[in-house]
Amino acid sequence: MLTLYHHPFCPFSRTVRIAFGEYGLNAEFVEERPWERRREFLIVNPAGSLPVMIDGDGAAICGVRPVLEYLDETRGAELDGRRLLPATPRERAEVRRLMDWFDLRFNAEVSDYLLTERIYKRFMTPEQGGGPPDSSAIRAGRANIRYHLHYIGWLAGRRNWLGGDDLSFADLAAAAHLSCIDYLGEVPWEEFEPAKAWYARVKSRPSFRPLLVDQIAGMTPSRTYVDLDF
Amino acid sequence: MLTLYHHPFCPFSRTVRIAFGEYGLNAEFVEERPWERRREFLIVNPAGSLPVMIDGDGAAICGVRPVLEYLDETRGAELDGRRLLPATPRERAEVRRLMDWFDLRFNAEVSDYLLTERIYKRFMTPEQGGGPPDSSAIRAGRANIRYHLHYIGWLAGRRNWLGGDDLSFADLAAAAHLSCIDYLGEVPWEEFEPAKAWYARVKSRPSFRPLLVDQIAGMTPSRTYVDLDF
Repeated sequence: MLTLYHHPFCPFSRTVRIAFGEYGLNAEFVEERPWERRREFLIVNPAGSLPVMIDGDGAAICGVRPVLEYLDETRGAELDGRRLLPATPRERAEVRRLMDWFDLRFNAEVSDYLLTERIYKRFMTPEQGGGPPDSSAIRAGRANIRYHLHYIGWLAGRRNWLGGDDLSFADLAAAAHLSCIDYLGEVPWEEFEPAKAWYARVKSRPSFRPLLVDQIAGMTPSRTYVDLDF
Repeated sequence: MLTLYHHPFCPFSRTVRIAFGEYGLNAEFVEERPWERRREFLIVNPAGSLPVMIDGDGAAICGVRPVLEYLDETRGAELDGRRLLPATPRERAEVRRLMDWFDLRFNAEVSDYLLTERIYKRFMTPEQGGGPPDSSAIRAGRANIRYHLHYIGWLAGRRNWLGGDDLSFADLAAAAHLSCIDYLGEVPWEEFEPAKAWYARVKSRPSFRPLLVDQIAGMTPSRTYVDLDF
């Protein structure tokens, strides 16, 4: 049995949860609020970041990229056509480039601004960085997302999936970030039809369903969040 | 023949250069100043970041993690005992955790502050972000490095190399970041003997030598930078 330390609105954790669904893996989920810097959690992952996966034998795998590579190495070969990293080194490099694109660049330019200001801060004490949202950070996230939606549409127009012929970790990473932001109603889908069409395909997969039932206390999801025909 | 787009004081590029040395790979090096956002370079890597490796067949591999994984996949198997990712998934996950530690965390908390303020800004126009160094950013980098040197010493005291029994990408990443900062004389080696002893072992490897001849115009390296017996 796998255990995943995660937060329901951590995009990196969501990527792993979708991967579990695609791979047909069951796991026990432990919600962690990384800003609390819980001592027992820091012993497991000194970086204090999410996600952390505990494999059946007790090994802790820390960080979204190490977890996804580990899943591919330990479960990928059995999956054949459903493998989420392609077969050749060059194709794998392209998927990894896009994983970095979403987990580093999209995160720094969009997710981190919007999720910190609009979600995480609600749960943080002042000492942990809580407080009223910073409107200039929110404005930056709202401006930057447009460029990324354009790029997603550009990729989706040239390939079957973002990283190549098959669904891959690149799609999972991109969709995980967007799903958190979509909850907030911050994705201008109507202006970016190709990105919307790609997202609708990922969102309709059974692996995505568990994410759509997550709720933030006191904050209703946007109209588009759960609707598969948004 | 491989080509590497790099900058001499980009820690991510340096990690790949040391890996080339360990693997006995020759490459052509093209210096890139990513802050110039050169159009031809953005076509190769839309993220505009370093390093980018062009393999003999023209494939562009973008980003330090994709490049290192690609090198392991395409050249690792021939290397036997000199492979820089371990054999088992669990050991590989530990090396990848530490790659993330240095490339994300150490970079954000130390390298990015010190290298941007003390090196890159000297070459940037005001429009590119150039200008006088921000002393509060430098102070933050100087404070944060101590915690990381402590952690390196802690790891080195428990293992043969940072990531396990053998030299790995984790050592290369850590040493690449530290080497840039050491040029600036910003590493308080004397207070962190275990980290220093580990760094001396990496620094004395033939793969490291090409880095030690890099110079910044108008800025002499620190006393400890070239000295193998610092």
